[in-house]
Amino acid sequence: MTEQHIASAFDRDLEAIQAHIMKMGGLVEAAIMSAARSLESRDVELAQEVRQGDKAIDALEELINEETARLIALRAPTASDLRLVLSVLKVSANLERIGDYSKNIAKRTTVLVNTSEINGSAAALRRMAREVERMLRDALDAYVQRDAELAADVIERDEEVDQMYNGLFREFLTFMAEDPRNISSCMHLHFIAKNIERMGDHVTAIAEQVIYLVTGERPTEARPKADFTSQSV
Amino acid sequence: MTEQHIASAFDRDLEAIQAHIMKMGGLVEAAIMSAARSLESRDVELAQEVRQGDKAIDALEELINEETARLIALRAPTASDLRLVLSVLKVSANLERIGDYSKNIAKRTTVLVNTSEINGSAAALRRMAREVERMLRDALDAYVQRDAELAADVIERDEEVDQMYNGLFREFLTFMAEDPRNISSCMHLHFIAKNIERMGDHVTAIAEQVIYLVTGERPTEARPKADFTSQSV
Repeated sequence: MTEQHIASAFDRDLEAIQAHIMKMGGLVEAAIMSAARSLESRDVELAQEVRQGDKAIDALEELINEETARLIALRAPTASDLRLVLSVLKVSANLERIGDYSKNIAKRTTVLVNTSEINGSAAALRRMAREVERMLRDALDAYVQRDAELAADVIERDEEVDQMYNGLFREFLTFMAEDPRNISSCMHLHFIAKNIERMGDHVTAIAEQVIYLVTGERPTEARPKADFTSQSV
Repeated sequence: MTEQHIASAFDRDLEAIQAHIMKMGGLVEAAIMSAARSLESRDVELAQEVRQGDKAIDALEELINEETARLIALRAPTASDLRLVLSVLKVSANLERIGDYSKNIAKRTTVLVNTSEINGSAAALRRMAREVERMLRDALDAYVQRDAELAADVIERDEEVDQMYNGLFREFLTFMAEDPRNISSCMHLHFIAKNIERMGDHVTAIAEQVIYLVTGERPTEARPKADFTSQSV
């Protein structure tokens, strides 16, 4: 009976922390899309909101860290319960990084509004961001529902994001070579593309956590990696 | 008596894990310098070693994660002991990221050897890498010795790294504008500079952990941030 009681107190605490994770996830999803939209519509105010909003995301990570430490100290979980609790820290750290990348995109947007537009690139970046945002939503769903299949699907889709990045990388190189006046803004746009590509990596890391939680196995090396630009001349 | 016994078993376990952290730190320090040296001397073999060596770094992080989980399950630490244990996870995650950045530099080096050299940039990047490597060494010393003063010094020095990055960023823009044939290699060099700058951020995060461990306070917003390139046109 006591055993049962302790177990459900643990579950209740863990659920409270996971609710914070979900809130954090919601804020990060919104940040991704707002950052990409602010770039496309050249909306400096929206970009400013994203930059400000990152503080709330950071504060949630801090809160999750503290509550997780409190949970471990109070309930002394072991085995799979402990694995569950430690995964919370990994997921929130990944969410925090994605939030940072969104903030960085918003920063660059406030610069890019002062430069001439590079043909269609903002729309392409927004499409790439939308794909990552959908992946994140599914990764968090998979996390809550302990759905390894959905998580594996998310990992698969990261390859598309990498390919979108590859395409943009080549495009920006071309624009820069065509006209040196494009160089500065293409550098920023390229960094934005790279930021979104890295977001995809962090979403993938969350999905990998889900698979680890469900199966106890880490999907090492299984992960497709289709960003080859670091190896291209 | 039992209390004492449990406490020292905890200390012993924690020391064993921290020894792994130190080993991981040594490998990462070596990876940073080998990556930078391989770029400067155009040594593809050395670059290949760095890429291969990253597996050992990743394996150590995995081991540290597992041993930390075991320690928590076995010793059920609370309060400051728990804070200590959880800091191990943060430090190893930061080291792992720095290792990844070194690997990425090595990858780009294997491409850059096939392009013409950009005047003096490899030497400048090596100097920047050496500064980060020294910061890392000091951050890990500060971690082992719980030396908040040394940690604060490391955080301070990250500003220099940011300024080195700013200088290189401007230089690469100039080289690209001067001759479109420089664009492709300057993009790679620029990414390398950015990778080193990000390494500095991760070293700073380790130093911040040390301050948190010693003082119980997070040095939020105190951190100087001197990379303003995301805001420059």
